[in-house]
Formats: sequence, structure tokens, C-alpha cells
Amino acid sequence: MKRRHFLASAGVAAAAAPLAAPALAQGKIEWKMVTAWPKNAPGVGMNAQRLADRITALSEGRLSVKLFAAGELVPPFGGFDAVASGAAEMCHATPYYWQGKTKAVHYFTGVPFGMTAPEMMGWIYFGGGQALWDEVYDKFGLKGFYVGSSGVQSGGWFRKEIKSVADLKGLKFRIAGLGGDVFKKLGVVVTLTPPGEIFAAMQSGAVDAAEWVGPWNDLAFGLHRIAKFYYQPAFHEPGPALEAIVDKKKLLALPPALQKIVESACQATAAETLADFTRHNIEALEPLVRDHGVQLRLWPDDIVKAAGAAWKEVQAEVVAGDALTAKVNDSFVAYLKKARQWAKWSDLPMLRMREEALGG
Amino acid sequence: MKRRHFLASAGVAAAAAPLAAPALAQGKIEWKMVTAWPKNAPGVGMNAQRLADRITALSEGRLSVKLFAAGELVPPFGGFDAVASGAAEMCHATPYYWQGKTKAVHYFTGVPFGMTAPEMMGWIYFGGGQALWDEVYDKFGLKGFYVGSSGVQSGGWFRKEIKSVADLKGLKFRIAGLGGDVFKKLGVVVTLTPPGEIFAAMQSGAVDAAEWVGPWNDLAFGLHRIAKFYYQPAFHEPGPALEAIVDKKKLLALPPALQKIVESACQATAAETLADFTRHNIEALEPLVRDHGVQLRLWPDDIVKAAGAAWKEVQAEVVAGDALTAKVNDSFVAYLKKARQWAKWSDLPMLRMREEALGG
Repeated sequence: MKRRHFLASAGVAAAAAPLAAPALAQGKIEWKMVTAWPKNAPGVGMNAQRLADRITALSEGRLSVKLFAAGELVPPFGGFDAVASGAAEMCHATPYYWQGKTKAVHYFTGVPFGMTAPEMMGWIYFGGGQALWDEVYDKFGLKGFYVGSSGVQSGGWFRKEIKSVADLKGLKFRIAGLGGDVFKKLGVVVTLTPPGEIFAAMQSGAVDAAEWVGPWNDLAFGLHRIAKFYYQPAFHEPGPALEAIVDKKKLLALPPALQKIVESACQATAAETLADFTRHNIEALEPLVRDHGVQLRLWPDDIVKAAGAAWKEVQAEVVAGDALTAKVNDSFVAYLKKARQWAKWSDLPMLRMREEALGG
Repeated sequence: MKRRHFLASAGVAAAAAPLAAPALAQGKIEWKMVTAWPKNAPGVGMNAQRLADRITALSEGRLSVKLFAAGELVPPFGGFDAVASGAAEMCHATPYYWQGKTKAVHYFTGVPFGMTAPEMMGWIYFGGGQALWDEVYDKFGLKGFYVGSSGVQSGGWFRKEIKSVADLKGLKFRIAGLGGDVFKKLGVVVTLTPPGEIFAAMQSGAVDAAEWVGPWNDLAFGLHRIAKFYYQPAFHEPGPALEAIVDKKKLLALPPALQKIVESACQATAAETLADFTRHNIEALEPLVRDHGVQLRLWPDDIVKAAGAAWKEVQAEVVAGDALTAKVNDSFVAYLKKARQWAKWSDLPMLRMREEALGG
């Protein structure tokens, strides 16, 4: 499957070459951006398209970026290799998809009980995160840019109520990434259903429960039609980051103003994407509860505590035996420790006091 | 004072004219950006400078923006009039400074017990906020762009502990904006000391307490050297917005790509500014407590509740008699109501569970 797609991709590139040459002669550059998402998928696909369009508009077409949805040029998880091999110049995805390359990538998406979106932006832009990310991607000839977040995600859809860790034992739960590793330690049977098949897997009973993104995207997937208990929040994804990967050599070969356009477009997209998810999750929660009988639940305390202990074990496994991953972990953890102190005196009491002051 | 500054500003503009003419002949445009901030002031001044530099770099100098710190061209609070009158093309400030023009501007900065920074970005970019802002600024010939936030601010520095509403009676408190109006209803004597004079006013005892921004900026001002009780958070400023004001006619006269550059630079600055404040507040909290003996305190419950009731009175006064302000208030309030629901199931429990899971 993967090989066939790559051959198809090579064919597309060859066919495009005669068109690209005269365009280049006029000083126009054409880039391909592959993505891990279906075309115009809410949040992810739409903001990838906006990023491509923004680069094209800012450069007045001197650098025009054409977006390819998952499967159009390479398979959903083929983006990293596509840019590394030169088959595409950019990819819109999330770093942990490339955990097979190095586990350090987890930290640039975020980890369980990790950073919120604004904390993560602070670490990436001003706290040393970008330099570490550059170190990790450099050996692949790539440069990663932060392009926003969904904000806090939702914990998952369950057919039955989950009252304690005991209720999780043997449950077939569709959940990806390090969150899956944490739940595995809590007795869950973790299942890796591809996004497009989650609804069918829930409907057929192939899985008992499923985690996807949050109200906006979950409503679109129709998961509320099958399971009614909606657990909040995804404590394993407090502020997961999206990324734009760029071919570093081709980026550095651009005139400085075009390089600045790529970087600024990514940064503008970071603000736009967080705003987009925030607004749409805010709008989608009400109909889920009001029109579809969804019952919101918070994770029980014993699960939170057990998940915290499990994450510490998983974290030790993630950093074991890889010096660069350990270095990234150390920076992330040191920053998070201070971020937690600030959050305890700012965002956390602010949200509590807002409820206290404004009331029901 | 104000008049003298404006005369000085006219002199600068006249002197610059002979230089600007040949530059324009080569297709280069020069804009002046005035600000409400001291040169390179942490957070505000530095991010205003970055915005000016980003527009210049993205346009390869076709649109070059020169920044003027507070007082260099016009006084700190002269920016709105300067752009409206054509003395400058841009201004970096915060909307509530212009409450003398219309009280609607309060909502584009944020109001007590209002929105966090990501919620506000969602409202401005995707929830109808920008269209309302355009309606408010249009009659002045201006366009406002959101350019980020400090995140949750801090509540203020007090010489003595505040245990209940009774301790606030008669206290001379330096606090600006609607927060000041709320505290006034709680018996506080509100004093409007200009930013540059806060330290002196605290030192001389002219005020008993003072509110400025948050750990980063407050540490720089040295307020911890005078008062040791640092109250958290600024419940009247959960995510105050910064703005870039642009002369609308001159913006629309730009070629489309340059208009897009102005808009994208503002949006990139929104992400950068929130990241900058978040990271630096995170870093500044520790030394305040560890090295300077600062005692962090949360506002007592009775003050929060009384402030909530006071805000509802202030809010009624703000919207009274102005249809457009009432329209903006309605949109803000309707969105906030839904945003609170989402926050109760996402950010609030996420931050609580992170502490529960990671411990100590």
C-alpha cells in the first residue's frame, strides 16, 4: 500500500515537471504540502489549507503551495518520509506520528499531563523548545514549525459509565499515542483504529470505547450516536501541537523574505488554529448535551491518580536509552514544573473564580 | 502636555516628508507606528517592535514600519487620535484606553470575569468579534487587529493581608479600567497613577496597593520591594487583548499582498505575544517567591462573590444608553456563556487533574 502510493507520487512529480520548469524560470516556486488529514477536515485539514493559501498569498504566488489531502500523494502517515525524500516540500501533521523515527517527537506534540497550548507556545518560541526540535529534525534534513493546537482534548466515548479503575479492566479502547500506553497500564486493551474507521469500529462493537479529538470533531464523526458517556478531559492531551514540516535545504535556499513568509505564516496559523478549535468546541458542546442526550463525566479521582503513576513509568520507558530524547524530556519537565506553579496561581483559580462570580 | 506633544509630532512629520517622497516614488511605503508603551518595554513594547519589524521584513521593505515609543511622536494615550487624524498609520495599544470614544471598546480588551486569551481569539477570529470591532472602529476610519494577550494577569500588590471585603474599605488602590470600577463598588479608593509612576506612588505611600500586569512586568517594576502580599489572579483581566490600530483608508489603498502582510503579521504577533508573556511569567514567579519573600495569596471567596455582583452593576452602566455597546455586550455574553461550559469540562478539570496526577 505504502509502496504503491509512493510510486503514484513519483508519477505525479514527473508529470508536473514540464509545468514546473517554466514557472521556475519566471522566478515562481511551487511547493507540495502533504497532510495526514482528509481534505478540509474540520480543524486540521482546514487549517492546513489556510496555511498553504496564506504562504501563496503573502508571496503573491512567488512561492505557491499546493495542498494534498491524506492519500492523494502519499498515505496519511507518509508525510515525514515524503518531505525527507524530496517527494514533497511540506507536510502538515503532528510530531508524534513519527515516533518510529525517534521518541523525542512526543514532546513536540505534548505528553500526558503535559503543557496547555499557551504553555507549549511559550516553550517552543521562547523557552528553548524550538532549538531542541531543530536538533531532533536536523538529522532528517527537516525543520519543524509549530502551527497551533486543538486546546484541551476530550477523554473519550464510553458505552457504560466508568466509576473506577476496575471498570477499565479488559475494555477495548481506541486511543493513540502515549495516552494509549498509559491506559494499557491501567488494564485497558488498546486498539489502534484509523480515524476514518472509528465510527464503524464503535458501531460493530469491535471497540467498547473511543477517543478522537473534542466536541467539534467528535460531533462530526457521530460518536454520540453510539456511546452516551463522554469523559472529560483528555488528560493525556492538554494542548497537543500541530506541526508544519519543511524540507530544510529547500527552505534555506529561498530568498530571506520568502523564508520569513513561511515562518510568519506558520505562526499566524498557530493563532488561527487554536482560535478555530476553541470557538468550535465551545459551540459544539451544547447541541451534544441538549439534542443528543450525551452525558458529560469527569474522570474519577482514582483513575487520574493511577494514570499519573502510569505516566511516570511510560515516561521512563520513553527516555530510556536515547540521550537526545532524555535531553528534550529534561527541558520539557523543567519548564512544566514552573508552568504548573504559575497555572496554579493564574488560569486555575481564574476559571474557578469566574464560575464563583458569575454563577449558574 | 498633550498639545505640546502633538506640535512636536507635527514637526517630525513635516521633517520626514522630503525623505518619504522619493521613497514612495520607488514604490516603497513608510508607515509610522505609535505605541502606548516605553521603548522595548517587556511584553508590550518588545512585541510592538517585533510587529513593525515583521511587516517590514515580510514586505522586503516595500512597506516599512517605524516604531515610536510613548511620547516620541504623541503621548502614551494619543495613539488613537494620531491614527484617526493621519499623524501616524498604526498604533499598538489596548482598546480600553479609548473608552472616552465609546464604551464598546472595553469588550475588545476584555471585561471582568470575561474570556481567557484562547477564548477571546476564538470570538474575534471565528465568533463574530472582528465584525463587531470593525463596526465600532469604522466611524473613526480605523481598523483594529488582535495582536495577543498577557494571559491571566495578577491581582495586585498589597502591604497588608486582605482577608475579606472589610479589609478593602478605604484602601487606596492603583487599578485601571473596569476593574477599578468594580473595586470602587467594594469600597476601595481607586487611584489612576500612570504606569511609570506606580513604584514612586507605592514607595511614598500615595497609594496602599497597586495592580500592574503579572510576575514578569511587576518584577521589572520592583513592586515586590515595597509590598509583600501578591494577590492572584486579576479576575478583572482573565485574558486582556492588545491591538494594532491601522488607518483603514491607507490599509485599503495598499496592494492586496501588503494588506495580507499586515493582517498576517498581526496574527503571527498574537501567537508570539501570548507565548512571550506566558513563558516569562512562568520564569518570573519563582524568583519573586524564592529570592524576594513575596507571599502569594488568592482572593478570598467573599471578595470574589462581591466583585461578581459589582461587575453586573458596572456592566449595566457600561451598556446603558448605547445601542452598539449593548450589541457588542450581547455577543460577548452569549459566547462567554458557552465558553464557560466548555472551560468547566476542559481547561479547569485538566489543570486540576494535572496537579492531582503529578503531585508535589
